[in-house]
Amino acid sequence: MGSSFEERKDNKNDFEDYFQIDEWRIVEKGFSPDKNRFAESVMSLGNGHMGIRGNFEEHYSGDSLQGTYIAGVYYPDKTVVGWWKIGYPEYYAKVPNAADFIGIDVEIGGERLDLAQWHLEDFKRILNMQKGVLRREFTAASPEKDNRIEVSVERFLSLARREVAAISYSITPLEKPVDISFSPHIDGNIRNEDANYDEIFWEEVDRGVHSGGGQLTLRTKKSEFNVATAMRSELSGLQVEEGTGIEREPIERKKFIAENIQVSAERGQEINLTKYIGVTTDRDYKKERTAARAEDRVREAASCGYDGLLDEHVGEWQEIWRDNDIKIEGDKKAQQGIRFNIFHLNQTYTGHDPRLNIGPKGFTGERYGGATYWDTEAYCLPFYLNSKDDEIARNLLLYRYHHLDKARENADKLGLDGALYPMVTMNGEECHNEWEITFEEIHRNAAIVYAIYNYIRHTGDRQYLADYGFEVIAAVARFWSDRAHYNPRRDKYMIIGVTGPNEYENNVHNNWYTNRMAVWCLNYAFDVKNYLEKEHPERSEKLLSRLELTEEELERWRDITEKMYLPRWQEREIFEQQDGYRDKKLDKVSDLDAEDLPLNQNWSWDKILRSPYVKQADVLQGLYFLSDQYDRETKKKNFDFYEPRTVHESSLSPCIHAVIAAEIGYPHKAYELYLRTARLDLENVNRDTEDGLHITSMAGTWMAVVEGFAGKKAEGGELSISPMLPESWDSYQFHLNFQNSLLQVSISESGIDVELIGGDPLTLTIYEDQHRITRDSPAEVPLSGGEKRNG
Amino acid sequence: MGSSFEERKDNKNDFEDYFQIDEWRIVEKGFSPDKNRFAESVMSLGNGHMGIRGNFEEHYSGDSLQGTYIAGVYYPDKTVVGWWKIGYPEYYAKVPNAADFIGIDVEIGGERLDLAQWHLEDFKRILNMQKGVLRREFTAASPEKDNRIEVSVERFLSLARREVAAISYSITPLEKPVDISFSPHIDGNIRNEDANYDEIFWEEVDRGVHSGGGQLTLRTKKSEFNVATAMRSELSGLQVEEGTGIEREPIERKKFIAENIQVSAERGQEINLTKYIGVTTDRDYKKERTAARAEDRVREAASCGYDGLLDEHVGEWQEIWRDNDIKIEGDKKAQQGIRFNIFHLNQTYTGHDPRLNIGPKGFTGERYGGATYWDTEAYCLPFYLNSKDDEIARNLLLYRYHHLDKARENADKLGLDGALYPMVTMNGEECHNEWEITFEEIHRNAAIVYAIYNYIRHTGDRQYLADYGFEVIAAVARFWSDRAHYNPRRDKYMIIGVTGPNEYENNVHNNWYTNRMAVWCLNYAFDVKNYLEKEHPERSEKLLSRLELTEEELERWRDITEKMYLPRWQEREIFEQQDGYRDKKLDKVSDLDAEDLPLNQNWSWDKILRSPYVKQADVLQGLYFLSDQYDRETKKKNFDFYEPRTVHESSLSPCIHAVIAAEIGYPHKAYELYLRTARLDLENVNRDTEDGLHITSMAGTWMAVVEGFAGKKAEGGELSISPMLPESWDSYQFHLNFQNSLLQVSISESGIDVELIGGDPLTLTIYEDQHRITRDSPAEVPLSGGEKRNG
Repeated sequence: MGSSFEERKDNKNDFEDYFQIDEWRIVEKGFSPDKNRFAESVMSLGNGHMGIRGNFEEHYSGDSLQGTYIAGVYYPDKTVVGWWKIGYPEYYAKVPNAADFIGIDVEIGGERLDLAQWHLEDFKRILNMQKGVLRREFTAASPEKDNRIEVSVERFLSLARREVAAISYSITPLEKPVDISFSPHIDGNIRNEDANYDEIFWEEVDRGVHSGGGQLTLRTKKSEFNVATAMRSELSGLQVEEGTGIEREPIERKKFIAENIQVSAERGQEINLTKYIGVTTDRDYKKERTAARAEDRVREAASCGYDGLLDEHVGEWQEIWRDNDIKIEGDKKAQQGIRFNIFHLNQTYTGHDPRLNIGPKGFTGERYGGATYWDTEAYCLPFYLNSKDDEIARNLLLYRYHHLDKARENADKLGLDGALYPMVTMNGEECHNEWEITFEEIHRNAAIVYAIYNYIRHTGDRQYLADYGFEVIAAVARFWSDRAHYNPRRDKYMIIGVTGPNEYENNVHNNWYTNRMAVWCLNYAFDVKNYLEKEHPERSEKLLSRLELTEEELERWRDITEKMYLPRWQEREIFEQQDGYRDKKLDKVSDLDAEDLPLNQNWSWDKILRSPYVKQADVLQGLYFLSDQYDRETKKKNFDFYEPRTVHESSLSPCIHAVIAAEIGYPHKAYELYLRTARLDLENVNRDTEDGLHITSMAGTWMAVVEGFAGKKAEGGELSISPMLPESWDSYQFHLNFQNSLLQVSISESGIDVELIGGDPLTLTIYEDQHRITRDSPAEVPLSGGEKRNG
Repeated sequence: MGSSFEERKDNKNDFEDYFQIDEWRIVEKGFSPDKNRFAESVMSLGNGHMGIRGNFEEHYSGDSLQGTYIAGVYYPDKTVVGWWKIGYPEYYAKVPNAADFIGIDVEIGGERLDLAQWHLEDFKRILNMQKGVLRREFTAASPEKDNRIEVSVERFLSLARREVAAISYSITPLEKPVDISFSPHIDGNIRNEDANYDEIFWEEVDRGVHSGGGQLTLRTKKSEFNVATAMRSELSGLQVEEGTGIEREPIERKKFIAENIQVSAERGQEINLTKYIGVTTDRDYKKERTAARAEDRVREAASCGYDGLLDEHVGEWQEIWRDNDIKIEGDKKAQQGIRFNIFHLNQTYTGHDPRLNIGPKGFTGERYGGATYWDTEAYCLPFYLNSKDDEIARNLLLYRYHHLDKARENADKLGLDGALYPMVTMNGEECHNEWEITFEEIHRNAAIVYAIYNYIRHTGDRQYLADYGFEVIAAVARFWSDRAHYNPRRDKYMIIGVTGPNEYENNVHNNWYTNRMAVWCLNYAFDVKNYLEKEHPERSEKLLSRLELTEEELERWRDITEKMYLPRWQEREIFEQQDGYRDKKLDKVSDLDAEDLPLNQNWSWDKILRSPYVKQADVLQGLYFLSDQYDRETKKKNFDFYEPRTVHESSLSPCIHAVIAAEIGYPHKAYELYLRTARLDLENVNRDTEDGLHITSMAGTWMAVVEGFAGKKAEGGELSISPMLPESWDSYQFHLNFQNSLLQVSISESGIDVELIGGDPLTLTIYEDQHRITRDSPAEVPLSGGEKRNG
């Protein structure tokens, strides 16, 4: 009957070895047109301000998902719904595919270069993660084979100048002298494949083109974001004096500008075109200046030159890797996997703009729309908190603070007090429209508060509570207070009609996780209130009065914390996921046939709902968040019951399970779970990488290593680690940013080595013992249990 | 806080007195353009084969919902859904608005008659329910007031010749002689307002027009139903010899045919145009003959003449009223209301074609699509069973029998054995696409079986079980057996993840009604199996072998009947609607503010779901169906608990409550509930009559009178009545068709009088006592409790 995950995986994955194993690079050797969309996703570049998929610069008539995305720019796509329910949003905010700015069409001796038509003799597409550069190299012969050329292309989106991209495109004729025509262009005639009603999202505002470059300014319909894209092209490698013997002709039509550049090349002569691109939006400039600023950016870029820009950019990546890298020795696949995740997290969100957030697909595809899910607070924050400056995490918190009024409106729409943060959002307004999610998956509200708590204990920045935090915490507490009802028959408060993190149950009563986190939020609200009253009495008084927090309301909050109903299954000594879960037919995943998986592609929805199968950590999510409040035995009992019933059909699920498995002494299980996401996109495990990468789950992989294998915790604001070493690894090493200290943690068979590499000395607990770590005194501790921990 | 239904109703209903009170007619006196759609719905005509809304024949530029519908003809409109779930249907079968055949454009002295532009001096639109005729009379002056005419129009859809309609259109110039131009036409350029993607549903197949008439044949796209509409027009009232002095000009264009007929009329001279219409479909004829048959129909009709056709038609209605009428004395409003309901039920479904069924809006609007809901079995069948020949009800049963294979496919799609009848269907395939309904509202399956049981006990036609019934019963039993699971912890079977009749709860566990009816179905399957084995051993053996019913399977069925979990709330001595219902905040409807109602127009869906409010009879639906298995006390306790929490936001709800209220001695409550649907559409109580009439709930009104006030039951195949007399009525009278007897039941203050007016003598229980009723010995019994029963 049953089959293990590994068996199923082996059965069908022909993507597993598609890319070569390399510690710093993703190498595609040989081109597979049928895997092009998949490779395009993997080869995406981003710099927080914009992103592009791994599309080709030159015309390509084969299958491709063209993708250019600008952070914070969205289109309100009219909602599609079969059966309207009161409270649904009118639109779904989507990241629109923006003007294609990488395009450089090429003709060789009058024949258009098109890798779908030309004969490829070799082909390499290489993502260099160390440098943040995408490179292609190939030799191609034209369809009639009368032209044969060698091409190498390199591009990057500058991390040093976020509005700048640069492309270096080189062609060498191999057989004979030829005329080469380059047509660098900006093409605004693009669409979204996932548009609800096949609408065109953009209209033209302005364009201009001249010898040397030009600009195209588009505006999104309805939301009216102006995005200006400018370009400038330079040729080099000519034997004649620069600028002579070249014909340049500007071309323009609706939503399109190009420059046609003709040049003759000798056999063996490498001709290089450098295209500088500037992309600006009216999110940063006045509408009327946006285009001029884009032209400024390309002018500055060109004067710096390709190599200069590249140096700056690589320098930024060096800094990122210095702080963010996880080094793994003895397992190149694992090393590549974790770096791939860290690389894309850094490409997606840099924290430079508190109006931005982390979309589930980042800048790598169209799916899901919106920018922000609870993924940010629940799964991504730990990565940014532990490996970035505090300001980055703080910006993620401020994003929600700025949306507080909209969250209040959202609660009001459902007839509730306080604030309900949206399930999916771009600007603070709810975008989702499935009642069981939009209206019922309200646990998301707790994650917003938990993120504040998590931020404070990692950074010690309690001032944040007075300035911003308490307003959010109080509004969420008020929501829980109204949403819970008192059941006099049982003398308990209950929260009914919810969907928990496990979305394979809908409209349940008393989801343990939701109820538990609601109580936690209310208790935390009291903690913070007490702190403010003590440390910021004036601010506190002002806040309480502005929020109109009455004694009566606080009394109800207190009452709820004392009398919340938390379902338990006494005989099994576990928490019950929700009322009635125990009445299901309690099969395990191992009882399933392999062909039933994934359930969401094989079973009708009702069959999934009435099954015992858990989509993602639910009770265990609560035990993860509130880890310090539950002992190991409790975690073990709940893990032993729920994990065998969890299908992990959310990419956010395995990491939480991995962390708990590591803690309760299941190292093999932890490693198995870690593997499910570590190379999720590199090996196209879910068969949907072509739609874009699973950006938010990448942070979960980081979590599985640092919080799972290394057992890092921050309970009560005290840092501790409790490392194990996965069997197949020789060692691993990472940095930890904690409060005012920066640590380097190295774990190998020979022991644990923790060094202070920046900031203040601190006390670190390793396993059970406290160690004072200063610049001069690192901690050196033997690995507990050694390999047995993974046995 | 609270407010009664009556108060709320008084607050806002400006439709209440729109039509004049008349025992046999619906009279609209004076024209209100803003209520035109409402009046058009009320004034709909139908004859089982086709139907038309009360639209005007002549051009009307004001607001109107043009509606012409042909029974059994549907268009598969591509599904709209926000979030696709496995198992959803690809399309929603919709009744397409068909070619408008009533159209007769009129010009008077070159000015087009248009009631939105002309000055109306008086206006009457009268639906004569006794005769099944719609009549309009008005005097109108042209915009410049230089023409003034008197118009009277009459039309009907023949009950005697179902493919024929006839219109008599008369004009009398009032001021001066004028040229009159008639343009009778057939217009296929129509759309559905509720088309999902604004598609045009029809394409032209053929057309032809000549002096005297023509035909237009259209075909629905995708489903490819051919519908031919032919017309023929005759003038009369001319002083010159017929046919002279008249100019006739055929006109045709794409999907449109017309004839322009010009004639001069003296002041005071009434000119009459009679338009005969024939409508045929390839459901009844070969595609290539459909048009010719439509032309045959108009030729035959014309040779019969308008008056001859009308006589035939009125004769049919006389027969219907003889058998179907409910006479109420002392309350004209009630009389009009009940006749309106009976009239439309007879217009919608005549039982002549087992491929047809009863759409929730009949032929009066576009909404809901599909033709068949569980409404048919649960609410409509009793009306047809008790007041029509047995064959009519039998055809309703056969409709489902013919869809059995599709119901098997439907269950298989959800991964289940046996058969699951669709929530909404036209041809047996599921059309609905809300997971909580489509996949979870599975109780509908029980109603299909219950209808068979109900049919047998009313007709005694047990042969039906052998021929058709058992196959359906066994397939449904098999579904229940697979859908229930055994819970070893409680040693009970459970059915989880369902939506009960109360659609204001979704995805609940152990809905009492669903579980109870599942057990009932399984028990009935055994009863029928035993009967067949005894009375039809050969057929029985064949059937059991064909259905592959093993002893093992039957053992499971038996086990389920013995161990089904049926939630009870012990302390309150009631059945619990579903697991966890008692944990809700158990407010009553009287706790609501008036502006909260109806909830489905004012509350977000999650608020409705977590409220205690019941949309329609749920536990009480079970007590109604299985009335003989529960005592009065049980009914009373459950009614007392659930009724005050029921918002009756389905028009199907009050009738069930009325029947039970009457039985348990709440006559005032019964009458109040009866009133909620008796004039539902006549007074536009739900503010949606403009979309069409609530056809299926009309049968509920009949039920409230006969099963409620008169207390008619058929328990164990024995007829009984237990009448009360509503306070404001002097008397009421109806017929009952039961097994081989036809009874006339009269109830007044002076007593109950039951006469045998057809068929065999029978034994009837009145209150507690049995009466043998023959042709010569009617029963005469005093009214029990007299007026006190309504006190």
